[in-house]
Amino acid sequence: MDRRALLRSALLSAGIAAAGASVVQADDSVGTDAPEWMKTPGRPFSSYGTPSKWQEKVQRTIANPPGRPGTGVSRTPLQQLDGTITPAGLHFERHHNGVPDIDPAQHQLFIHGMVKRPLAFSLDVLMRYPMETHIHFVECAGNSGGYGAPQPLQITAGEINGLLSCSEWTGVKLSTLLAEAGVNKEAKWAIAEGADAAAMSRSVPLEKCMDDAMVALYQNGEAIRPEQGFPMRLLLPGFEGNMNVKWLRRLNLTDTPVDARDETSHYTELMPNGKARQFMFLQAAKSVILKPSFGMTMKGPGFYEVSGLAWSGAGRIAKVEVSADGGKTWAIAALNGPVLSKAPTRFRLPWHWDGKPSTLMSRATDETGATQPTRASWVAQYAPGQGYHFNGIQSWSIEADGTVKNVYA
Amino acid sequence: MDRRALLRSALLSAGIAAAGASVVQADDSVGTDAPEWMKTPGRPFSSYGTPSKWQEKVQRTIANPPGRPGTGVSRTPLQQLDGTITPAGLHFERHHNGVPDIDPAQHQLFIHGMVKRPLAFSLDVLMRYPMETHIHFVECAGNSGGYGAPQPLQITAGEINGLLSCSEWTGVKLSTLLAEAGVNKEAKWAIAEGADAAAMSRSVPLEKCMDDAMVALYQNGEAIRPEQGFPMRLLLPGFEGNMNVKWLRRLNLTDTPVDARDETSHYTELMPNGKARQFMFLQAAKSVILKPSFGMTMKGPGFYEVSGLAWSGAGRIAKVEVSADGGKTWAIAALNGPVLSKAPTRFRLPWHWDGKPSTLMSRATDETGATQPTRASWVAQYAPGQGYHFNGIQSWSIEADGTVKNVYA
Repeated sequence: MDRRALLRSALLSAGIAAAGASVVQADDSVGTDAPEWMKTPGRPFSSYGTPSKWQEKVQRTIANPPGRPGTGVSRTPLQQLDGTITPAGLHFERHHNGVPDIDPAQHQLFIHGMVKRPLAFSLDVLMRYPMETHIHFVECAGNSGGYGAPQPLQITAGEINGLLSCSEWTGVKLSTLLAEAGVNKEAKWAIAEGADAAAMSRSVPLEKCMDDAMVALYQNGEAIRPEQGFPMRLLLPGFEGNMNVKWLRRLNLTDTPVDARDETSHYTELMPNGKARQFMFLQAAKSVILKPSFGMTMKGPGFYEVSGLAWSGAGRIAKVEVSADGGKTWAIAALNGPVLSKAPTRFRLPWHWDGKPSTLMSRATDETGATQPTRASWVAQYAPGQGYHFNGIQSWSIEADGTVKNVYA
Repeated sequence: MDRRALLRSALLSAGIAAAGASVVQADDSVGTDAPEWMKTPGRPFSSYGTPSKWQEKVQRTIANPPGRPGTGVSRTPLQQLDGTITPAGLHFERHHNGVPDIDPAQHQLFIHGMVKRPLAFSLDVLMRYPMETHIHFVECAGNSGGYGAPQPLQITAGEINGLLSCSEWTGVKLSTLLAEAGVNKEAKWAIAEGADAAAMSRSVPLEKCMDDAMVALYQNGEAIRPEQGFPMRLLLPGFEGNMNVKWLRRLNLTDTPVDARDETSHYTELMPNGKARQFMFLQAAKSVILKPSFGMTMKGPGFYEVSGLAWSGAGRIAKVEVSADGGKTWAIAALNGPVLSKAPTRFRLPWHWDGKPSTLMSRATDETGATQPTRASWVAQYAPGQGYHFNGIQSWSIEADGTVKNVYA
């Protein structure tokens, strides 16, 4: 595997043009045979566009219990996308009692508890504060939990890892609003509550609130989408998704965490000794190969680009290594810049597949030096079935017939 | 105007909390009075999301001649957005005969003319090539042409400047595909043709094709939208929008430009001597203040964030200056990073409005040292009414009653 192969067009010609009949030598008639859609005027302008009808299978995958339409998840189809931004329409969802329909003119954000003066902010007033824009991922703590299963699940990369999405977020730094309210010395936590029918609540360390936490109002340029918290959400870059409380309506400053339902009965990690670990906030360094991945078929030996996403809640990705022999040897992938803190980075590596069975793996290392454990050593840390905060190395096997499978290697 | 004011919460308190009744002292009942949308389950998951119904007025502004529904433009409502990415649904449109409905399985890209072997690429085959991801703007050469009008137009910032949008584009470097075909020594241009009913064509210098040109397949993560060229478009970072040929079907390599309709009857600049200047490809350094801007009303004296976008087809933005006194004095705005080449940069500056009439202006300088001329000196370069490539300094007046108007200052 050789990154410099990118520069050698001879290899590309041999690898791609020779591999299939689809790159064909064109003859003198090129361009004279106009397709039907050039013969009649196209459709008119639209005030808000939608994807091509030919893309209708590119959808979120919804999973929720029978009879509870507002509880569960929908996942981003990562393997059908490229780049790093997730279109807002495909951002993953995790709801506890559905998506509330909030009148933005009625909504208020309260900051109260251990503060000098409790405040209520309307959306109009928040809009007047200084804003910042940052590209960050949000990842559910339960993402990739399927890797806890005894046998590898034969489902797509997005069906396993699609509780990860990335947006350009714009909003007001939480520290600015807390300074307005005046935080008392004894305050150590902020209890964030959403205005959904679950009143979803989490305890957030004050230190994070005063660092890079944001009350996000815009997502990918436009007002934040209903499924991501319209008209506002808490954004805690790098922290588990559940804490990034959507439809944010309250921040109650306290000296202790509140032991909310979603930090006791959920979002804790069951350890081998039967105790649950609480407050594992950070989403650790992680990566997944998306092309190729389960559900795709290799079209014979030749050149392929191996590409995927790497991310870490601790900062920037420093390195992604890729193996094609199940971890015996590793090559360094190219990182498609800009490489941003707490944002997914697209990695790419040219690969000449010789047509023999192979096992592809990726391993990310972040700027703190943290790297991904093997799946086996990750699993060994926890009680059987514990599925939060999986960040083990993932593996796809390429069979001789070109099929791609999920394997534990 | 003082950027360091961002750090002074006391000023913010005085400026915002004191300015309106909307930031209110909350009492002990905070959070106990649940709004109606917390009392019933919300709506279920969706496979592809859409904006909130409360945002239905955030739309592209369509402008086209009577009886010609597929010819004209729709503009991005820049003043209603924040950050730098344009959601694909609001990316500006410029069509010459409507949006073709292209079957991606039937579409081919031909590279022919002065090449060693003419080639035809299907979408499937293009997908196998090495890809790159970059955030870039696309701007129509006619953007902001309204500033050529003798009197300032009283329309929104987006209605004037909204033929500018920004996406994360992913695709195959054109130089990779040209290397496959083998470019003959005598080739100097590539004639790019779209598969729309206008067969929109432009001559592109070979030098640009071999530099950072891309055949873009993805926009903001998902397949490129129909209005932006599904299944593929030419992307020429920093060059006028019209050359970024959508629905790309042919690149015919030649030794001379082809004098296509859109580089002779359109997209040339009429000079004072009656001759037209041809092949002004680059979109020069430019900026626009979006908040505040026409259509907004200031809510009394106090703190405001002045923010907007700056961009240059020549590279990175180096500096944005803002004036509140019609250009007598200037302050340096903060640039919201990452500051990327040929991508819009959001600038922000805290401002304490004293309630008196003021004139806001912004002036961008790019990394080549190029800066914006005054409107008067820009207009003086051309014959009256010439509206391509406007990059003069724009001005908003703030009246004592808080209304914001477009002025020539």
